[in-house]
Amino acid sequence: MSGERLGEFELIRKAFQDGSPEPHSTTSVVNGDDASVHAVPDGMELVISTDASVSGVHWPDGFPLDSAADRATCAALSDLAAMGAEACWAWASVISCSADDLVELGEGVNAALTRYSVELSGGDTACSSVNALTLTVGGMVPVGKAMCRNWAKKGDDVWIIGRAGFSSLGLKQWMAGMEEGYFKRYFEEIKPKLEQGVRLRELGVRCCIDVSDGVLQDSGHVARASNVGMTLELSDFPGWDLLCHKVGEKSAIHAVVSGGEDYALLFTAPEGMGFLDNFATQIGVCREGVGVEIQLNGTALEGLASGYDHFA
Amino acid sequence: MSGERLGEFELIRKAFQDGSPEPHSTTSVVNGDDASVHAVPDGMELVISTDASVSGVHWPDGFPLDSAADRATCAALSDLAAMGAEACWAWASVISCSADDLVELGEGVNAALTRYSVELSGGDTACSSVNALTLTVGGMVPVGKAMCRNWAKKGDDVWIIGRAGFSSLGLKQWMAGMEEGYFKRYFEEIKPKLEQGVRLRELGVRCCIDVSDGVLQDSGHVARASNVGMTLELSDFPGWDLLCHKVGEKSAIHAVVSGGEDYALLFTAPEGMGFLDNFATQIGVCREGVGVEIQLNGTALEGLASGYDHFA
Repeated sequence: MSGERLGEFELIRKAFQDGSPEPHSTTSVVNGDDASVHAVPDGMELVISTDASVSGVHWPDGFPLDSAADRATCAALSDLAAMGAEACWAWASVISCSADDLVELGEGVNAALTRYSVELSGGDTACSSVNALTLTVGGMVPVGKAMCRNWAKKGDDVWIIGRAGFSSLGLKQWMAGMEEGYFKRYFEEIKPKLEQGVRLRELGVRCCIDVSDGVLQDSGHVARASNVGMTLELSDFPGWDLLCHKVGEKSAIHAVVSGGEDYALLFTAPEGMGFLDNFATQIGVCREGVGVEIQLNGTALEGLASGYDHFA
Repeated sequence: MSGERLGEFELIRKAFQDGSPEPHSTTSVVNGDDASVHAVPDGMELVISTDASVSGVHWPDGFPLDSAADRATCAALSDLAAMGAEACWAWASVISCSADDLVELGEGVNAALTRYSVELSGGDTACSSVNALTLTVGGMVPVGKAMCRNWAKKGDDVWIIGRAGFSSLGLKQWMAGMEEGYFKRYFEEIKPKLEQGVRLRELGVRCCIDVSDGVLQDSGHVARASNVGMTLELSDFPGWDLLCHKVGEKSAIHAVVSGGEDYALLFTAPEGMGFLDNFATQIGVCREGVGVEIQLNGTALEGLASGYDHFA
């Protein structure tokens, strides 16, 4: 904001559309009409997800708004990654406390979408007493190939791409005002694993979820939807030794099991797909029974806290 | 809420999915995964719009939350009507002050979607200090047939389906605490003109917008996008005499020109489509020049206020 008063429509243009990606090749009616219009080519299906992010819930007061909006956008894109979809379009609904906040939030949305070459296809804005965003994102997968939660089979291996627990420890360091906290950057920047999701789907993986609410809750979604049990070994998680070294075993357990917002991809695959080792880490197996058992060095842990409940 | 404490996931099920419509025939992965997945049949295009509604902005404090959420959902669906799309899917992001508020808001979303047979394909919830919803809605049109803002031609007639100004007067009566206000029901209930939108598109209409921000602002969007001028005659609007009789000419002018949230469909069509008279009302013409001139009994009005600016 340069001091002069911009109208709502100019504000939106300035914030959201400055240097933004070209429309996607499938788009026939661009941002600015009552709705956007897109072709979905033969043999492809539409994949859509929506994600809310709210000040004081998904980011702490004082956190830079452009970073908050960048995170919100990446969190939404992560759901497309977990389905193995190519990300194409986004629609942003932004509620902000002021015109200045709107511009900062819009710049964050625009930055993330530009980084991942995703078109902003539409949106809406309103003024209120909180800052909040809803990002709806759309993409495409070949018909019948979306990676879902209900495809895990007994005997499948469980794998992860990305770190778990690092983001929640980063948030704690940010809240404590640490200037040089090791984990801070894991909270500040989310990297939706879009390329990895597409690659997994191309390799034939059918069951995947993004870990947004802690490993226990999200692996539990897969186990329940697939009607299998699951055993996970904490010491096999990427960065486990580092976590223990930095914060101690007890905090490390809590961070991996219950800490949210890492946006790792957790997936299952039949035994014998060892080549996945090149870019993923095996952390457990699917078995008979129900529920998820979390082990540390072969011993089951009890009384673990599940992920975040917004209305607890 | 019956007093016992429901978890977040049970709350969402109770609020949003009680008696809700069956999944749409195109849906292959339903609500509950990281994203929903849908086929878009050959020859059809995808139409998507997103709409934010916030307590204190889109509805007054004290307005029943289920009605507020019903309105928010209908307002979003109205954008699909304006494109001539068949409404298929919705994704709801709901920020609420409490679990009870979440349930009320969810019930309103569910009621509206059920009335129009639209599947709830996904959503997200969070707790905050305001109640707010973002509804993203999706539908389909035959390829190339979406009704857009930039298709008005010089010489086209301008038509409207539905009343303008009635909703903003209803809001005033609601705010004034009137028990029997004539206009109140026009604020309380929005009827997205989905059937009418599809019918217009089938009749060959190419240019349409829904009047959400007042006639002057929304017709201005069409005039600018289409590079035409427009002249509208207030006395030709449906219900004009009634408006003048009830609130006087000055307030009637203000309500029609600048009052929002009526969700009438304003469209243009070539001269000689008089059969549209059966379900629409001609209110003006497209002409040479730029901008929208509003007349009353043939005399141009000056100094009219445009629609709502969220950041003014």
